[in-house]
Amino acid sequence: MTLLVAITGWDPDPWLDRFRALLPDRPVVFADAPHDPTAIRYAASWKHRPGSLAGLPGLEAIFSLGAGVDHLVGDPDLPDVPVLRVVDQDLTERMSEYVVMHCLMHLRRGWLYAERQQQGLWQDERDQPAARDIRVGIMGLGILGQDAARKLAIMGFDVAGWSRSPRDLDGIPTFAGESGVSAFLSRTDILVSLLPLTPATRGLLNLTLFRGLARDGRLAGPILINAGRGGLQVEADILAALDDGTLAAATLDVFESEPLPAASRLWTHPAVQVTPHNAAMSDPDAIASAIAAQIRRHEAGEPFRHAVDLRRGY
Amino acid sequence: MTLLVAITGWDPDPWLDRFRALLPDRPVVFADAPHDPTAIRYAASWKHRPGSLAGLPGLEAIFSLGAGVDHLVGDPDLPDVPVLRVVDQDLTERMSEYVVMHCLMHLRRGWLYAERQQQGLWQDERDQPAARDIRVGIMGLGILGQDAARKLAIMGFDVAGWSRSPRDLDGIPTFAGESGVSAFLSRTDILVSLLPLTPATRGLLNLTLFRGLARDGRLAGPILINAGRGGLQVEADILAALDDGTLAAATLDVFESEPLPAASRLWTHPAVQVTPHNAAMSDPDAIASAIAAQIRRHEAGEPFRHAVDLRRGY
Repeated sequence: MTLLVAITGWDPDPWLDRFRALLPDRPVVFADAPHDPTAIRYAASWKHRPGSLAGLPGLEAIFSLGAGVDHLVGDPDLPDVPVLRVVDQDLTERMSEYVVMHCLMHLRRGWLYAERQQQGLWQDERDQPAARDIRVGIMGLGILGQDAARKLAIMGFDVAGWSRSPRDLDGIPTFAGESGVSAFLSRTDILVSLLPLTPATRGLLNLTLFRGLARDGRLAGPILINAGRGGLQVEADILAALDDGTLAAATLDVFESEPLPAASRLWTHPAVQVTPHNAAMSDPDAIASAIAAQIRRHEAGEPFRHAVDLRRGY
Repeated sequence: MTLLVAITGWDPDPWLDRFRALLPDRPVVFADAPHDPTAIRYAASWKHRPGSLAGLPGLEAIFSLGAGVDHLVGDPDLPDVPVLRVVDQDLTERMSEYVVMHCLMHLRRGWLYAERQQQGLWQDERDQPAARDIRVGIMGLGILGQDAARKLAIMGFDVAGWSRSPRDLDGIPTFAGESGVSAFLSRTDILVSLLPLTPATRGLLNLTLFRGLARDGRLAGPILINAGRGGLQVEADILAALDDGTLAAATLDVFESEPLPAASRLWTHPAVQVTPHNAAMSDPDAIASAIAAQIRRHEAGEPFRHAVDLRRGY
């Protein structure tokens, strides 16, 4: 019956407190504290120490505490039990807030006007395209990508999506697979990456891809927004693309190495917005509740939801 | 048949060109150029010189080239013909872009993270409320206010509206009249002003009103966004409210005097965002087309649309 909380990099105590409050009928133990491995039935992981979920004979499921599961895939000793992703309305909405806000800031040149304010300059750009003039392309059409696409379309943007396997989205054109990439990129002014990190997507956001983006748009040039995973992007290529005009701007929430090293030129590049991996922060209350509900459903004989296919990586 | 274009403060030539292209069957003349007053049937005005529309015996209608009509109301010699507001989908959508973007920037502390980037600081605020935790109150529920309310609600904000006369908005609570102001303000964390400027609304955004805003919200304090008219606000009161904590921040697109004077402390106040009256820029093509369509409808015997009641001022 015991729930094992296996966390590194975050303070585990708030998670232990929440799970204990939500699941008062069972023990909740921290992985680094002494515990009986044979009593563990579920594990909740955020970057657990590789190997630390091995040797748990009664383990029935592993819950990821974040939207991504790439932190689990790196463990060669991960037990062969269902791995369940957190799907949480709160997290989805926060990601869409971030994506819509940054698309609007690029459309409406919010950073330019902030700079002009600092200079005391009252000066308006007459050539302000409307949202409908700007083609936003979303890579990754899972729950996050679909919600962002829908909200961007309501704000008026000309939205399309790309995913590895074909997806039908109401009113939004979609492209799929490797064969769909170039048509998708060539109609994209703002590229929004919400892809999972897998062997197939690692380093995908590179110079070759950026060169495929639309060159005939109403913005100063193509713009990259990556709120997926840092491993998707090649930062040297982003800087080269910004320097030679292949990209006009980039908004990055995730980085090859986090925290972003002080020496990175991304910190100071005038066309780059850096946020500290907080586009869609996991709300501990919402996530713990979702996991407690999964456990209750499972024990009532219902199937788990949101299982991850670890071969695909999402 | 002649259309008179009576503009000050903007370059009239692009307007003359557009109207001539859209209405090739009739003369289009600039008010400051020689013309026959008896031939004028319509006038298109943006801050026309007071008195310059008098003495036009054949005048049938005056079109405002912007969303507001306060620039017309100040002319004591305005002829007694229908005054028609521009209602244009493009302008409406641009205003909603501005309002949604700035509400999101306050919610997600976009300006704070931009500052942290400048300091090379990777630091995340753990206590990030969700949109649903933030109560946005929109004053002014005309076409602009209704569209902004709907889009803010889709983004997840807890939206309510206030208008002088009662309005029913699908799914959005509304308050009306003087008796509704205090209940409306006390549930408002972000106040968005989209009111027209009339004798009743001049100076409405003052310290007394700010003191009525919610003090129990999830933001650092109440926030003002004014994208209506500068005459709605008392800038000395905004600064006093920011200094004593009655307001936590303000985003202002309009000012008592425009361009905002260099000496104004609003330029440099760290909690103030200044934009140069461009929240919803009139797109000349869209507006000229809407006016040409009004003229064609009128001459086909149909009534004008979007008439202004000059006693109310909107």
